[in-house]
Amino acid sequence: MVRLKFSIELNYYISASGSDFVFNIHAAHTPQQLVKTENLHISQKLVPDMYLDSATDTRFLRLKAFAGSLQVGYEATVDITHHSVSPTELGEVWISNLPGAVLPYLYPSRYCQSDRLHKFAVREFGNLWQGYSRVLAIRDWVQTHVSFKPSSSNSNTSAVDTLIEEVGVCRDFAHLMIALCRAVNIPARFATGIDYGADLALGPTDFHAYVEVFLGDRWFLFDPSGTAIPMGFVRFATGRDAADAAFATIFGGVHASPPVISIEAIADDHGHLVVPVHTKQALSTDDGRRPATT
Amino acid sequence: MVRLKFSIELNYYISASGSDFVFNIHAAHTPQQLVKTENLHISQKLVPDMYLDSATDTRFLRLKAFAGSLQVGYEATVDITHHSVSPTELGEVWISNLPGAVLPYLYPSRYCQSDRLHKFAVREFGNLWQGYSRVLAIRDWVQTHVSFKPSSSNSNTSAVDTLIEEVGVCRDFAHLMIALCRAVNIPARFATGIDYGADLALGPTDFHAYVEVFLGDRWFLFDPSGTAIPMGFVRFATGRDAADAAFATIFGGVHASPPVISIEAIADDHGHLVVPVHTKQALSTDDGRRPATT
Amino acid sequence: MVRLKFSIELNYYISASGSDFVFNIHAAHTPQQLVKTENLHISQKLVPDMYLDSATDTRFLRLKAFAGSLQVGYEATVDITHHSVSPTELGEVWISNLPGAVLPYLYPSRYCQSDRLHKFAVREFGNLWQGYSRVLAIRDWVQTHVSFKPSSSNSNTSAVDTLIEEVGVCRDFAHLMIALCRAVNIPARFATGIDYGADLALGPTDFHAYVEVFLGDRWFLFDPSGTAIPMGFVRFATGRDAADAAFATIFGGVHASPPVISIEAIADDHGHLVVPVHTKQALSTDDGRRPATT
Amino acid sequence: MVRLKFSIELNYYISASGSDFVFNIHAAHTPQQLVKTENLHISQKLVPDMYLDSATDTRFLRLKAFAGSLQVGYEATVDITHHSVSPTELGEVWISNLPGAVLPYLYPSRYCQSDRLHKFAVREFGNLWQGYSRVLAIRDWVQTHVSFKPSSSNSNTSAVDTLIEEVGVCRDFAHLMIALCRAVNIPARFATGIDYGADLALGPTDFHAYVEVFLGDRWFLFDPSGTAIPMGFVRFATGRDAADAAFATIFGGVHASPPVISIEAIADDHGHLVVPVHTKQALSTDDGRRPATT
Repeated sequence: MVRLKFSIELNYYISASGSDFVFNIHAAHTPQQLVKTENLHISQKLVPDMYLDSATDTRFLRLKAFAGSLQVGYEATVDITHHSVSPTELGEVWISNLPGAVLPYLYPSRYCQSDRLHKFAVREFGNLWQGYSRVLAIRDWVQTHVSFKPSSSNSNTSAVDTLIEEVGVCRDFAHLMIALCRAVNIPARFATGIDYGADLALGPTDFHAYVEVFLGDRWFLFDPSGTAIPMGFVRFATGRDAADAAFATIFGGVHASPPVISIEAIADDHGHLVVPVHTKQALSTDDGRRPATT
Repeated sequence: MVRLKFSIELNYYISASGSDFVFNIHAAHTPQQLVKTENLHISQKLVPDMYLDSATDTRFLRLKAFAGSLQVGYEATVDITHHSVSPTELGEVWISNLPGAVLPYLYPSRYCQSDRLHKFAVREFGNLWQGYSRVLAIRDWVQTHVSFKPSSSNSNTSAVDTLIEEVGVCRDFAHLMIALCRAVNIPARFATGIDYGADLALGPTDFHAYVEVFLGDRWFLFDPSGTAIPMGFVRFATGRDAADAAFATIFGGVHASPPVISIEAIADDHGHLVVPVHTKQALSTDDGRRPATT
Repeated sequence: MVRLKFSIELNYYISASGSDFVFNIHAAHTPQQLVKTENLHISQKLVPDMYLDSATDTRFLRLKAFAGSLQVGYEATVDITHHSVSPTELGEVWISNLPGAVLPYLYPSRYCQSDRLHKFAVREFGNLWQGYSRVLAIRDWVQTHVSFKPSSSNSNTSAVDTLIEEVGVCRDFAHLMIALCRAVNIPARFATGIDYGADLALGPTDFHAYVEVFLGDRWFLFDPSGTAIPMGFVRFATGRDAADAAFATIFGGVHASPPVISIEAIADDHGHLVVPVHTKQALSTDDGRRPATT
Repeated sequence: MVRLKFSIELNYYISASGSDFVFNIHAAHTPQQLVKTENLHISQKLVPDMYLDSATDTRFLRLKAFAGSLQVGYEATVDITHHSVSPTELGEVWISNLPGAVLPYLYPSRYCQSDRLHKFAVREFGNLWQGYSRVLAIRDWVQTHVSFKPSSSNSNTSAVDTLIEEVGVCRDFAHLMIALCRAVNIPARFATGIDYGADLALGPTDFHAYVEVFLGDRWFLFDPSGTAIPMGFVRFATGRDAADAAFATIFGGVHASPPVISIEAIADDHGHLVVPVHTKQALSTDDGRRPATT
């Protein structure tokens, strides 16, 4: 079990008469990721609205803020128990056997136009063994072909753009990997959170975007950007792509400062400290619960 | 109450060693759209898998079919009770008051890049009264600016393309209207089904794509293509856009013939026949149930 | 020397009150491609306007046609003397040494967005020897990765689309090869004409689009689609891409029938018949004349 | 006659082993724009290569520079004699009557996809009188619908993007106006240079991109961005779009500093000072010479 303690501070200046925010900054609370303590601080006197999406365990925080400055702080301690599997045991699930709720993650989305990449993906990955190693091959392909370059993309950049231009940031790596997985019928989703152990050469600790792929009976973690340690991911939100799972979606005229984030691995109640490390094992923070289907 | 009786026949030839299908051809079964009788016929001996998405009432039919010919027939009789409201009473719901499950329909999707249309939509529709009449203005704008032309678009065509090229089929009209609604923060979703009263000058009865917009406390019906009568819509599936709610998503090499569809309005148990007509009233087939939020 | 005799028949029905046409259906008349005989027939009584673009030797035919049917026929006999070079002797020309008139063929164009493909092309082809063999490697890459499929693209399809979707017709193969050449600073242009020896399995003889690349001191012939024999190309027009060199650009409402084209290799004045064949030699129909620069 | 004196200083740091540059920073030398004095300074000991494109009078400067710093300075004094016409006398030229060399400016290009905007442009501008006033209507439409915002676009941004997103810099305004003109069969081209009288609220004096449209017998000046005074334009290069006429096209790894530009209106040899002002007259700096056609 990994215990991570972190804090996030977001600073905005709202120029309009008021703005709405949808935040995904709460750690998802699941059997595999227990939120031991958490604290939310909002500088304006507001009634925050929380919405739990039971399908993904994402906790949406909605605020209707006034003009002026707004500071949102969140800090938590989470205990993450990873489900760890040998890669060789982990096969893909054929379409007819997928849980119904997983089907939408086969379909193209705003930033992951898997429909357009079908021939490409089949030629490149179609003949590989259909399991964890094929997903690794896709991850490695993305990591090899795309260069990480801060500020090289914008909110309009999609997987097709990244495939063509071969440059991007973590969210672009994630979008391209997701699109390629879906193009060969492997369900894949976008995840955001923060991570312990990020490569600080790329800048201060920031939110991170990564990928979860459905294999066997649950969602497994992948980091196509190669800048982080999957064992150190704290999951906040998941969705089809960044359109669903941005850490903040803002409606109205707002000036945002860069987030201030800190994270550390701490000892558990028995004084035992586990620090996230890279591993060859397949890791999941999904407990395999699925909504019952009819 | 409108009672509609219809049948659908789909013919495929599967060239590969086998193919997977996800169909959305079952009438959604809801308090407002009662499925009185229905019958599914599949020419191959297969075990069909049904999945009900409780959030949208969409019923997914999955088949893993063998090589050779496949015929899928579905026929049903449905009773549709429309919730009818005076347009002047129907306001938009501000972001902070939307049911949580409706939030995703504010976000951009594969074919509805509302993020890119924000300035356009605000300039064109930003100053209108925020209610049903604004949505009608968006619908009318789409209907006026886009020409209906069979085979003028393909599976890659998105709202941005349709805004630029001003030509398309019903699905393109729907995508553009949805993108424009979301761009001014009005939740909108894509619906597919069949419809009584389609303009037969445009070809034989076919599946139809239309739009549902969230106003007041529920989803209301709109037909941006102007080729159909909303009161005659039988809803099958809803989703973000056509990526979610295509009547058939096919995995594998398949030759498809055009669907054969017939529909008629019939008398109810008391011998009373209601034929769908155009109306100035706002119509919904949503009963306003929302999943409980936390 | 190859002597080719061919005829083209184009049939239109002009529904508007009249339409303008710009045709590129005349064989370019150059020292290497002598037009021995030619005949133009126009069914309407019109004064055709011919414009010779001296930079490319393209002969534009402009017609202002009346409503009703229009038939345009052109037949010619051309003697093509190929400049043939051993591939190993043929190097690329560095930017600073290119003839000034060749510079524009380094720049991106409507259908060849070489600017976007820079990183891709450098990674894939950047380390190869800079000469004919690198261009062959690009041609082969395109031929291997793209599938030929009639009607799989439209007038909006560009090199970026073809790179993503990996399917197209001869014009798409040409656009992608051109874009990749320019992306590694090799001047490349689009050529249209007809060809002796086309693969008839792909349909009746039609116009053909191919590529000319500037190497050494002139433009050399390449056929990325792999469906034709470069020695059998009759050049009509060249340009940046299909926007410049379409065989017909039509302004107004016109219904067009498929062109009817025939071509044969015939004996020269001495009774000697040379039939186009595939060759390992580098072939050019450019005589190396360049406009003087200042 | 307007006499303008200006200087340009460009600073680069070349990190690679050497880089090639193609500059368009020389004032075009034409009967209407006489270059009275000019001086080019290059900090490295290089042999600059000048190429004059006789079709457009653009003077290309090519440099093959070494690693290290490179400073390029250019200063000149030009006398501009404007051809001034009453707008009401200035009609469009029908396709069949256009000079042959003007035809390419009807075709779509990298950043001006006029083919896609045909229906839009015809609906919006198709019924206007076909002359100078229609071009003004297009210019005004662009100026009204697009917001000027520094750094809001990048080198991939095209007219289609600007039409959708309604934001850009002077080059984006120019691309959209050009695309809309071509979409209704009006030849339009991209021009770059510097300008006297730029709106300094938008930043220090910089290169400017504007539009020339072919009306009557020559090219007329338009400024869709609305940030400058056309009478104060010094023309450097013209082309299909920014792909042809960028002030600098750079091949290789180079760091560029912002250009330093100054410009002033000075008195002519008789002590007479004409300062550029806005005018209702149609202005051209084209002398109406056309290459002879065959």
